[in-house]
Amino acid sequence: MITLKGAEVSAKIKEQVDELYKGITGSKPKLAIVRVGERPDDLSYERGALKKMEAFGLLAESFSFPCDISDEDFKREFSKINKNPEIQGILLLRPLPSQILEKDIEQMIDPKKDLDGISPYNIAKIFAGEESGFAPCTAEAVVEVLKTNDIDLTGKKVIIVGRSMVVGRPLSMLLLKENATVTICHTRTENLKDTCKNGDIIIAAVGRAKMLDGSYIGKDAIVIDVGINVDDNGKLCGDVDFDSLEGIASMATPVPGGVGAVTTAVLAKHLVMAALSQAEH
Amino acid sequence: MITLKGAEVSAKIKEQVDELYKGITGSKPKLAIVRVGERPDDLSYERGALKKMEAFGLLAESFSFPCDISDEDFKREFSKINKNPEIQGILLLRPLPSQILEKDIEQMIDPKKDLDGISPYNIAKIFAGEESGFAPCTAEAVVEVLKTNDIDLTGKKVIIVGRSMVVGRPLSMLLLKENATVTICHTRTENLKDTCKNGDIIIAAVGRAKMLDGSYIGKDAIVIDVGINVDDNGKLCGDVDFDSLEGIASMATPVPGGVGAVTTAVLAKHLVMAALSQAEH
Repeated sequence: MITLKGAEVSAKIKEQVDELYKGITGSKPKLAIVRVGERPDDLSYERGALKKMEAFGLLAESFSFPCDISDEDFKREFSKINKNPEIQGILLLRPLPSQILEKDIEQMIDPKKDLDGISPYNIAKIFAGEESGFAPCTAEAVVEVLKTNDIDLTGKKVIIVGRSMVVGRPLSMLLLKENATVTICHTRTENLKDTCKNGDIIIAAVGRAKMLDGSYIGKDAIVIDVGINVDDNGKLCGDVDFDSLEGIASMATPVPGGVGAVTTAVLAKHLVMAALSQAEH
Repeated sequence: MITLKGAEVSAKIKEQVDELYKGITGSKPKLAIVRVGERPDDLSYERGALKKMEAFGLLAESFSFPCDISDEDFKREFSKINKNPEIQGILLLRPLPSQILEKDIEQMIDPKKDLDGISPYNIAKIFAGEESGFAPCTAEAVVEVLKTNDIDLTGKKVIIVGRSMVVGRPLSMLLLKENATVTICHTRTENLKDTCKNGDIIIAAVGRAKMLDGSYIGKDAIVIDVGINVDDNGKLCGDVDFDSLEGIASMATPVPGGVGAVTTAVLAKHLVMAALSQAEH
């Protein structure tokens, strides 16, 4: 079984970003990471994003707010970041605490700075298969892993396990654009194992530690693991039991070291694309 | 094999509309049908919609424009209809001639009057599985046919053939909301027959006369035909060869007399919902 390493995909995306970057004449593109509270997974993602921006030669600034900030106060602060011409892209760590109306922020965010595709404007573009919108970075990272590794998607049976707005749903649309035959499974799916076994490519995005093992995977299938969980021993793991795939799957992404590293590379690419389009206007 | 008749589903939707209608105290809700040119299928759909609105006790007015109307002139006229407070809902017959920038109209249309779900605002809501948006009427009509006939969708394998923005894509999201396991097939799908045969429910939305016959259908599956085509003898027919399903499918919709009749009933329901929400504001 071939291990599909995120670092290699990230390196290829860096080449694309370097090429795009040549079009930028002014100051370096700058990302704003907006965080409310101190949730460990937010902090971990933030650290990864800051590191990646630095590695890609881009700027990033964290804006953090107390977890009890009022809806009004947060919106005022968010609006300042949203309008700041020195910031070309925004990553909002979610979910927000319940007192903040997240739906309003989705409407508020400038679609041109909305690098993680949360605004209705970008969602509608992804749904329609248009190139010009920003897809959620994790969903796009999955497509990047497949395409960078020259895995042909045309006509292939791709099984997505999970129907979230962050991965499952947008990913289904991105894969349709690549001419894959897409099946979306979820907690209510009957005979999940049979459905998965029938797929050429299985994408796990459920958020349950090692939920899928080799018994779900058909011979020579390709497995992409989007999950980031902690196992019983406190170790980071995916939605897939990686070791159990040996001798069954033809290729698979590990966790850590798989899709996660690609997600922040896609974020960097989106930042440079955003800076370019804002420079044009 | 049971024939799932559109008229029966439409009658049930009328009961819901009559119930909703009780909340309306002012003048009757009014639909604007906007048509550019004289394409036969537009004229046929328009006639059906006018008839249905009348049958449901609702108002409708056609606004037709010459097929060579300029982008600027059409936008000015469309804007008047869009802002007219006496019109609560708009149905724009599409595609528009190429000189009109259809994307601009999708952005322009008031989401509260956008009964056929073409604005990014409504598309994003359907994508997220939110109740408050308007889905494209044809996609929602398919769900109505299934639900009105007490066909349980939870965990069922639903195969959609066709990935258009009018049916396939939005329908996949509506069916996910009903907890179906959804597969989207299209022209590039390999082994379409095998995939279809494996489904509990097959939805044909390809736009090719009688493309699917009994050999694509598993024993006791349910077949919903969204196609409206003309066969070699000039007769109206669907994407499915209805007669060939006998002894194989458990239930199927005919063409004509199936989904089409339900689409305009959904349009009427959306009009009354739009009128109610506009009266509230």
